[in-house]
Amino acid sequence: MATATLTRDRILDAAMELFSENGFRGTSITQIETAAGLTPGAGGIYHHFRTKESLLEAGLARHLDRLLALRDITKLMAGLGDLRAELMLMARYVLSEMDNEQTLLRILATESRSRPHVLDGGVEELVRRSYSGFAGWLVDEANLTRERAERIAVVGLGALLSARLIPTLFSVTPTDVSDEDFVKTWVEMMVRTIEES
Amino acid sequence: MATATLTRDRILDAAMELFSENGFRGTSITQIETAAGLTPGAGGIYHHFRTKESLLEAGLARHLDRLLALRDITKLMAGLGDLRAELMLMARYVLSEMDNEQTLLRILATESRSRPHVLDGGVEELVRRSYSGFAGWLVDEANLTRERAERIAVVGLGALLSARLIPTLFSVTPTDVSDEDFVKTWVEMMVRTIEES
Repeated sequence: MATATLTRDRILDAAMELFSENGFRGTSITQIETAAGLTPGAGGIYHHFRTKESLLEAGLARHLDRLLALRDITKLMAGLGDLRAELMLMARYVLSEMDNEQTLLRILATESRSRPHVLDGGVEELVRRSYSGFAGWLVDEANLTRERAERIAVVGLGALLSARLIPTLFSVTPTDVSDEDFVKTWVEMMVRTIEES
Repeated sequence: MATATLTRDRILDAAMELFSENGFRGTSITQIETAAGLTPGAGGIYHHFRTKESLLEAGLARHLDRLLALRDITKLMAGLGDLRAELMLMARYVLSEMDNEQTLLRILATESRSRPHVLDGGVEELVRRSYSGFAGWLVDEANLTRERAERIAVVGLGALLSARLIPTLFSVTPTDVSDEDFVKTWVEMMVRTIEES
């Protein structure tokens, strides 16, 4: 049982990595078998997954489950009593989560139009929850109204996300500003906006 | 000569649209010929482009040329003497430019890893110029130091870009905040940060 789970995870790891590199269509079952250490063409993969689609679906579900669970971490960043420190932690957390999810981001950007049936729902839920979660956090920690918190969350979280989306999805480095200076400036903009609310 | 140019543009339009929908690998020369109104399989396309790669290259070059030319428009948004009004125009301009370039954004996100030789250089230049152009504008219009302007530009432009990158690339609507409220909040955050610089 443990071995089956390990094999399943290994297949999913290999598949997601290949989907991210070569696209869903550009990846064959044989390539996935080889990358996962199975005998190519022997069909061992079919003990775990019926189709390439079900592999993508399971791989995405695994990523989304992990991200939705991680969301509870934001609770750790509440109640420090120092808005500036909390915002800095939040910024670093979002950036590192984006770094961990480069494979997912690439697959979503590549496949979101061609395979909407697989990706629908879960991705929308994850993105919307991230924004509304951040807004909720601003309501609790910075005493903003819900409406105002939502508007600030779109600008603030958007700025953090783009700092990773652009390099990850377009393979470019937009500026030479360091992560540290970026986070500092972001915190400062957030604090000034919040304090005058 | 005029007809040749028109046909060439029509082929490029069709090719970029198909690359954006189905990916570079998922698009055949025959599909492009059909979509461009040429006789499929008759080879008419080869009067204009030798390979599918050269089509992608020419299509991207056309987008990038247009965007680099448009950059001069930022001059129109200078010297109004009202920073708030200038920032609002800038925000609307960036959002509408992103709306116009959905096809380009999708192709870049899909192909930037698989076809770096075609995309390299031009895309990096466009992105870096956008950030440094916005920073330069902040230096001129808001009297910021270059270093400070660059840091604010990463956060500010990043927030604007993500407002379009996320819906375009992931086919999701992150929040229900309207464009108008988003731009208002963005301008306010920028003004507060700039004024206290």
